[in-house]
Amino acid sequence: MSDPRRALVTGATGFIGSHLVRRLSSDGWQVHSLVRPTSDTEQLQRQVPDLQTHVVSADCPSVVEAVERARPDVCWHLATHFIAQHETRDVDALIDANIGFGARVLEGLARAGTNNLVYTGTAWQHYRGQPYAPTSLYAATKQAFQTVARYYTDTTQLSMVALKLFDTYGPNDARGKLVSVLLNAAASGATLEMSLGQQYIDLTHVDDVVSALLVAADYPAPDGTPMIEHSVKSNNPITLRQLVKMVEEVSGRELQIRWGARAYREHEMMSKWEIHSFLPGWKPVIPLQQGLAQLWNELL
Amino acid sequence: MSDPRRALVTGATGFIGSHLVRRLSSDGWQVHSLVRPTSDTEQLQRQVPDLQTHVVSADCPSVVEAVERARPDVCWHLATHFIAQHETRDVDALIDANIGFGARVLEGLARAGTNNLVYTGTAWQHYRGQPYAPTSLYAATKQAFQTVARYYTDTTQLSMVALKLFDTYGPNDARGKLVSVLLNAAASGATLEMSLGQQYIDLTHVDDVVSALLVAADYPAPDGTPMIEHSVKSNNPITLRQLVKMVEEVSGRELQIRWGARAYREHEMMSKWEIHSFLPGWKPVIPLQQGLAQLWNELL
Repeated sequence: MSDPRRALVTGATGFIGSHLVRRLSSDGWQVHSLVRPTSDTEQLQRQVPDLQTHVVSADCPSVVEAVERARPDVCWHLATHFIAQHETRDVDALIDANIGFGARVLEGLARAGTNNLVYTGTAWQHYRGQPYAPTSLYAATKQAFQTVARYYTDTTQLSMVALKLFDTYGPNDARGKLVSVLLNAAASGATLEMSLGQQYIDLTHVDDVVSALLVAADYPAPDGTPMIEHSVKSNNPITLRQLVKMVEEVSGRELQIRWGARAYREHEMMSKWEIHSFLPGWKPVIPLQQGLAQLWNELL
Repeated sequence: MSDPRRALVTGATGFIGSHLVRRLSSDGWQVHSLVRPTSDTEQLQRQVPDLQTHVVSADCPSVVEAVERARPDVCWHLATHFIAQHETRDVDALIDANIGFGARVLEGLARAGTNNLVYTGTAWQHYRGQPYAPTSLYAATKQAFQTVARYYTDTTQLSMVALKLFDTYGPNDARGKLVSVLLNAAASGATLEMSLGQQYIDLTHVDDVVSALLVAADYPAPDGTPMIEHSVKSNNPITLRQLVKMVEEVSGRELQIRWGARAYREHEMMSKWEIHSFLPGWKPVIPLQQGLAQLWNELL
């Protein structure tokens, strides 16, 4: 029997990261993760007892040493610091978490001889579907990581697939995102204040996202291009109003919404953005209605 | 009489920065600079007594506060941390100096209402003249600054001209660059170990560089494009061997060179790279031979 493949996952305690780690472990991978001294990994380690965590401090040599210990065949760099609209006091943390930590991981992968890196970016790097047009400083730092990564993919053995995620949902989502808010409101009968609700949202179930992450790990770079970008999306965006209607159908409850009580945020997705192509060999299979029904049943 | 224009210069104690600050001051600008607590500004302040220095610490609020005090009409962001070939221990400093500090300056300019930013990048972001192909982690961090800046130029009043510099030379150059090395060797008779010398070098005199920086400050973004890139170069690249010959002509001394004693570095400019166009309204006027002769006369 051959040795198990070695995975390194950053952001392993996050929503997508924890789903990925469980899947990799059950698929027989040896799974490593980088965690900060302050990270709470207890729950994840209970679910994935053979997860190997490496505590790293905020300097490059510490991260490189940990990556060299993990010696991964594939790295999924999912760790991210999200701030929708930043204040001055947020700038340093955005740079350090999304570019600095990422650069340390890249340096480690280069030194450890890792061939494959899968990175999760965001549709918000691509306002109105443009090649690069950031809607927030957060999105700009996600792109800047790719800019730094180009040095490593151009000059070392490392190849990278950058997946641009639209919105995601699924079980065990502690992010307080819209889908959770709507389902909780359906359960509680609470009244929600919303914008006019004509903006689009493109929701992919986390199990489909994990499938994309696995396909990306084995995706051969076409023509030797060491960095490629693809989308992870349902390709079936709906408006916020349509989403509310679907939650009402799934739950059998009428939602109490004060439409127009809030202004639209800047840079909302008011049209259907076309960003990159689907990752070859992957497509989402869980219909939104089915995914929502599953969450509603778990909530009751 | 109208108020003087307000300039903010980062990297003011560096080679190009100190030349720029002297020129701005003699042109009647009110000149501000951001300096670290450890910066030695004594010499510069002796030369430019009315220079206003703002000491900033390594966090965003500190830099923003200083930029708001300076309230510049134009910022020249020249501060840079250069490392030709990085080691693991250099990664954090490259990220923090070239991206983190830059992001703090951008945040400050956005808050201070500044309209014009001039940034000095490097030809090494453009291996073989490609739109982006970094030859070093240093070059990647210079490009990543531009990636972050796109957020600010897309969403605030700020416009940016990114000038891509090839090699530069001139008086008071403490950087230990090739031109100084060759002139010093001509004076001392020392023997130099070199590569085979067929790589190209494109040298612009610092007075011409400063002219370009001034033109860039008033350059209107065409069609409202808030970020543009142009080259600062002589457009007359010569090989290292031709440069040695020119130094010999200027000095009347024969240089002692052991050609081939060193290997070429990776990513040398072995052909003439075409990168961006000249900045409209600017062209270099100091012939290399004349600039070298001036330096040689000062050396004697």
